[in-house]
Amino acid sequence: MKVGGRHYRSIELAEDGWSVLVIDQTRLPFEFGQRRLTTPAEAAEAIRNMIVRGAPLIGATAAYGVALAMRTDSSDASLKHALESLAATRPTAVNLQWALARMAGVLRPGPPGQRAALAYREAAAIADEDVEACRLIGQHGAAVIGELARRHPDRPVNVLTHCNAGWLACVDWGTALAAVYAAHDDGVPVHVFVDETRPRNQGASLTAFELGGHGVPHTLIADNAGGHLMQRGEVDLCLVGSDRTTASGDVANKIGTYLKALAARDNGVPFYVALPCSSIDWSIADGLRDIPIEERSARELTHVEGRSAAGERTTVEVAAPGSRARNPAFDVTPAHLVTGLITERGVAAATRAGLLGLFPEKARA
Amino acid sequence: MKVGGRHYRSIELAEDGWSVLVIDQTRLPFEFGQRRLTTPAEAAEAIRNMIVRGAPLIGATAAYGVALAMRTDSSDASLKHALESLAATRPTAVNLQWALARMAGVLRPGPPGQRAALAYREAAAIADEDVEACRLIGQHGAAVIGELARRHPDRPVNVLTHCNAGWLACVDWGTALAAVYAAHDDGVPVHVFVDETRPRNQGASLTAFELGGHGVPHTLIADNAGGHLMQRGEVDLCLVGSDRTTASGDVANKIGTYLKALAARDNGVPFYVALPCSSIDWSIADGLRDIPIEERSARELTHVEGRSAAGERTTVEVAAPGSRARNPAFDVTPAHLVTGLITERGVAAATRAGLLGLFPEKARA
Repeated sequence: MKVGGRHYRSIELAEDGWSVLVIDQTRLPFEFGQRRLTTPAEAAEAIRNMIVRGAPLIGATAAYGVALAMRTDSSDASLKHALESLAATRPTAVNLQWALARMAGVLRPGPPGQRAALAYREAAAIADEDVEACRLIGQHGAAVIGELARRHPDRPVNVLTHCNAGWLACVDWGTALAAVYAAHDDGVPVHVFVDETRPRNQGASLTAFELGGHGVPHTLIADNAGGHLMQRGEVDLCLVGSDRTTASGDVANKIGTYLKALAARDNGVPFYVALPCSSIDWSIADGLRDIPIEERSARELTHVEGRSAAGERTTVEVAAPGSRARNPAFDVTPAHLVTGLITERGVAAATRAGLLGLFPEKARA
Repeated sequence: MKVGGRHYRSIELAEDGWSVLVIDQTRLPFEFGQRRLTTPAEAAEAIRNMIVRGAPLIGATAAYGVALAMRTDSSDASLKHALESLAATRPTAVNLQWALARMAGVLRPGPPGQRAALAYREAAAIADEDVEACRLIGQHGAAVIGELARRHPDRPVNVLTHCNAGWLACVDWGTALAAVYAAHDDGVPVHVFVDETRPRNQGASLTAFELGGHGVPHTLIADNAGGHLMQRGEVDLCLVGSDRTTASGDVANKIGTYLKALAARDNGVPFYVALPCSSIDWSIADGLRDIPIEERSARELTHVEGRSAAGERTTVEVAAPGSRARNPAFDVTPAHLVTGLITERGVAAATRAGLLGLFPEKARA
């Protein structure tokens, strides 16, 4: 997507042909800039500290992290260390494991002398395939929005989204927001309610930045407000991303997603989840039981970073000193609350049969 | 309740016998101090800007605001002006209307020469009655917590609360937190999950401050996290306050309450609402249709106030510049999601029959 007239991907190979440029998402929305990754340790730190985040982008960053490792040491030991250290950065999004397994599958059999070239080629393929998958998700999702627009020709379709499932979460386009961009670009009037998404404010900082940059009308709301808006008939569609979707359609996504899915069901609002198939974990069915939920630092709750009146990056403490905090980063929305899964191959029911209808090759697994 | 060893009420008559001292709740949790109100305009401003907040405290402050007006001008015109200007401060909590109607009922028939004395007496009665109501709510609520404790003798009862329904929201004790304090003081092990309660962070700043001050174990969480904790069986009881409860048991409370009620129902967690009868609006039944929901400034979402590393009160901007925001301050939880209403007369089902069982004198209305 474009920022200031130039097209960016959220992760790009630098002009030197080997280092990797990512957008530092911890500095948005007030500063837009790239950060150079030159070692697998820097790639791991970028994932852990959420300089990059979003399931697809985490996968692509991990893939490039392996390539950076192979560049300086392509031994089996170096490969093993890179795979293990990158896998340990964040537990919930399955794309990390998926991308690392794919890199391992290509590199383990390869001769060490060719591993660097193979690794860069595979990482680029992962990134390019994600862009194409997101483009297709956008088209399928835009059809869902278009159908709602035909029902309400007198006003914009009101979409509620949580966290950031836009181009900053992927390599380009996004998942949930790809559908919004595609509909908007097709001339369908669409307006987005953006949950601020505490504690890290990805909605207020990333989604609002993205939508504003693309000229999509949007309104920031507290995470608490979505149920009220749905009760009042002000939301036509909930549309979110996913960090891991089980083979039966349970969806792990940013903490708070489940609450919005409950409100959607209670008010008859369709609840769609957009995801590339790299986010599907075919090995598990029960998301509540089997998806590990990351717990992050209490400080993400007790301290808030923003821009001071003087224009400086400033962190303020907001909670009563001495109070303990818990910070689970994801929750699981059971499949029965999900109206449909929007993938690069089309829209599936959130069931095993629905997913296998689009991905029949997985039935053999 | 005690702060620093001294007992405070959230609103008190000053030692001069006429001015009114309130705790400036916008400065908590980092600065605890009282602010003096000397005119009805100052009382109205304290309500509007949430220097005082919480349905019972808003009622008591409005009553004292009328007393301050009567002190300098006890004419009919002055009384009318005070009642109207105080009524216009905030629309959702019914205690404001209730307290002003009660003051009007006492003062309108009274001779102007006696109105100041009558007003101070009635405002003090409203405050004292609220303290007694909250004390009784605490006892009835502690019985609910005690029953859960007997079911789980091996561990604390885990209560989830939203916003602040503590002594700072009332005159003393609180409503939901009165039950927690009473249980804790009875030796029942209780632990509270405190929703931070965006956008104004009353949980992080006020409830955490209160619970810490009273030594009650508690854990701050994002508003997004409660559903996840309920899915994992980590919450035994949801317990919140109310700004207005209809005659049929619909509950208007801080925005986000409805989402927690949905999660409680989905996970079989009891959802109780604690309230004095001054918060019941006997004139309406359909909360979704008939309770006015205040919309507050977008700035409450886009800017966050806290304490800088240097210890100074600092406001930071947190949202993408140029993004519009909506800020509804309350939502309505339909009665069918409410397990019980804890009042000063006992616990009622959230139905017309349940409420009339405790308040039979209202059946005549």
